[in-house]
Amino acid sequence: MLKSSLPSEIRQLCRDKKLDAPTSGLAPGYVQANLVVLPYSLAFDFLLFCQRNPKPCPILDITEVGNPEPRLIACNADIRTDLPRYRVFKYGELITETTDIKEFWRNDLVAFLIGCSFSFENVMLNSGLPVRHIEEGKNVPMYKTNIQCVPAGKFSSSLIVSMRPLLSSDAIRAVELTSRYHKAHGSPIHVGNPELIGIYDLQKPDYGDAVTVHEKEVPVFWACGVTTQAAILQAKPELAITHAPGYMFISDIKDINI
Amino acid sequence: MLKSSLPSEIRQLCRDKKLDAPTSGLAPGYVQANLVVLPYSLAFDFLLFCQRNPKPCPILDITEVGNPEPRLIACNADIRTDLPRYRVFKYGELITETTDIKEFWRNDLVAFLIGCSFSFENVMLNSGLPVRHIEEGKNVPMYKTNIQCVPAGKFSSSLIVSMRPLLSSDAIRAVELTSRYHKAHGSPIHVGNPELIGIYDLQKPDYGDAVTVHEKEVPVFWACGVTTQAAILQAKPELAITHAPGYMFISDIKDINI
Repeated sequence: MLKSSLPSEIRQLCRDKKLDAPTSGLAPGYVQANLVVLPYSLAFDFLLFCQRNPKPCPILDITEVGNPEPRLIACNADIRTDLPRYRVFKYGELITETTDIKEFWRNDLVAFLIGCSFSFENVMLNSGLPVRHIEEGKNVPMYKTNIQCVPAGKFSSSLIVSMRPLLSSDAIRAVELTSRYHKAHGSPIHVGNPELIGIYDLQKPDYGDAVTVHEKEVPVFWACGVTTQAAILQAKPELAITHAPGYMFISDIKDINI
Repeated sequence: MLKSSLPSEIRQLCRDKKLDAPTSGLAPGYVQANLVVLPYSLAFDFLLFCQRNPKPCPILDITEVGNPEPRLIACNADIRTDLPRYRVFKYGELITETTDIKEFWRNDLVAFLIGCSFSFENVMLNSGLPVRHIEEGKNVPMYKTNIQCVPAGKFSSSLIVSMRPLLSSDAIRAVELTSRYHKAHGSPIHVGNPELIGIYDLQKPDYGDAVTVHEKEVPVFWACGVTTQAAILQAKPELAITHAPGYMFISDIKDINI
C-alpha cells in the first residue's frame, strides 16, 4: 500500500512519526533527494562545491535561509520533519540519529536537496537493464576513488562512486539512458578497469554491500551523492544535518521531468 | 590574424590594451562567457538565482572570494584585465565603461562566468543551420518575456530571450543540437507564437537588432544571459561589474566540451 502512496502522503507519515524505514521503492517514479543542512556562513562555499562537482552533487533545490520548505520540488513540505530519519553532526562528529530535527533548527540554516541514483535506476529498470544490488536485495556498493573533486572554500573530497555491473552492450545503453538525467548524477564516470580510478577490490566496497559481477560483465561507475557527506566530514562544520543513509526526502517531481 | 589567435593570446591583447572590440568570431570553437562581479555579501543569493534559472544563467566558473583568476576555465587569466571592455554599476546605475577594472577590484568581490549563445551558434553553423543575425551582420534580437524567473533573495527578473528564425524542420534539428549544450542556454524555451510568451512585435526587440523572418520560418526563442544583467539592475547592489555587451571573456574551454 505504501508503495503506491503519493509523495505528500509519505511525507505526512514521516511527519506523524508513522514511517521510520528506508525509502527505496516508495513512490516509484518520483525523485528522491539527499539532504544536507548547513549554516548560512558555509552555504556559499558548499553551493560552490556542488556547482563545481555537478556529477556527484546535482542540486535539485535550496531553501531560503531559515525556511524549511523546499518550494521548488515539494510545496508545503517541511524538511525538518518530512524525512523518516536524520543524522546530526557537530564539528564532523555524528552526535545523534533522529526522526525529526526541529530541536536543531535555526534561523541561519540552509537546506540543500541533492539528486540521487534512485531516479536513474528506475529508468534502467524500466528499460530492461539489470540493477544488480536491487536483484540481490542489497545496498549499492560504493567506493572511494583516486579522483579529486574540485575544492571550494572549506569543502574538498575524493570522488565517491557507486557501481553497477553490466554486459558491455548494456553499459553502452546505460550511458545513453543516464546521460539525460544530469540531476541524478548523469552518465557514468568510468567503465571497466577499476584500478585506473584507484579501486583495487570490488568485493570490498567502502560503503554499502558487495554484489555479484557475472562473467563478461564490466563494472560501471557513477558519481555518488555520498561525496557530499565525505566533504562535510572533512570540513567539520559547527553543525551539519543530513538524511540517514537510505532514508531520503521524497519530492513531488517526477523522474522523467528532471 | 586575430580570428585564428588562441584564447590566451586574445586575453593578453586585452591586458596590453591592444584590443577594444566585440569578441564575436574571435577564437572560434572556444567558449565565450558573460561576466558578473558582485560583493561576497550578495554572492550566495546570486548563485542561488543562477542555480534556480539554469537556462538563462548557466555557470561556467566562479572565482574564489577576492581572487580574479577563473581557474576552471582559464588558468592564469585575470578577469580584471582580460576582457576588452567592462561596465561598472553602483546601486543599479551605470557609472562608467572601461577597459580594465583594477581600480574597482576589492578583496570581497566574486566573479561569475556565465555561458553565452556564441557556443551553440557555432554548433548550428557547423551543422549547416542558418543564424540570421550573423548572416545580416547584426546583433541578435532579444526580448523581455512574460515568464518570471524563480527569484532568489534580492534577485528577480522576467526571462529575457534571444530569437533566431528557422524553418520548422531546422527548428527541430536546432532543438536536438542545442539540448546537449546546457552550459550555453541549452534547448530553446519556446518555438512559434511569440504572443504566448508576451512578445507582441518581433520587429521591435528590447535589446539588439531586428532581423528578417522569411516566409515559412518560425521564431525560435532561447533563454539569454542578459537576464542576469536585468536581475542586477533590479537588485541595485552597491557595486556590480559586467562585461560590456558583446565584449566577452574568452575561455580556454572548447565549445564541444561543455
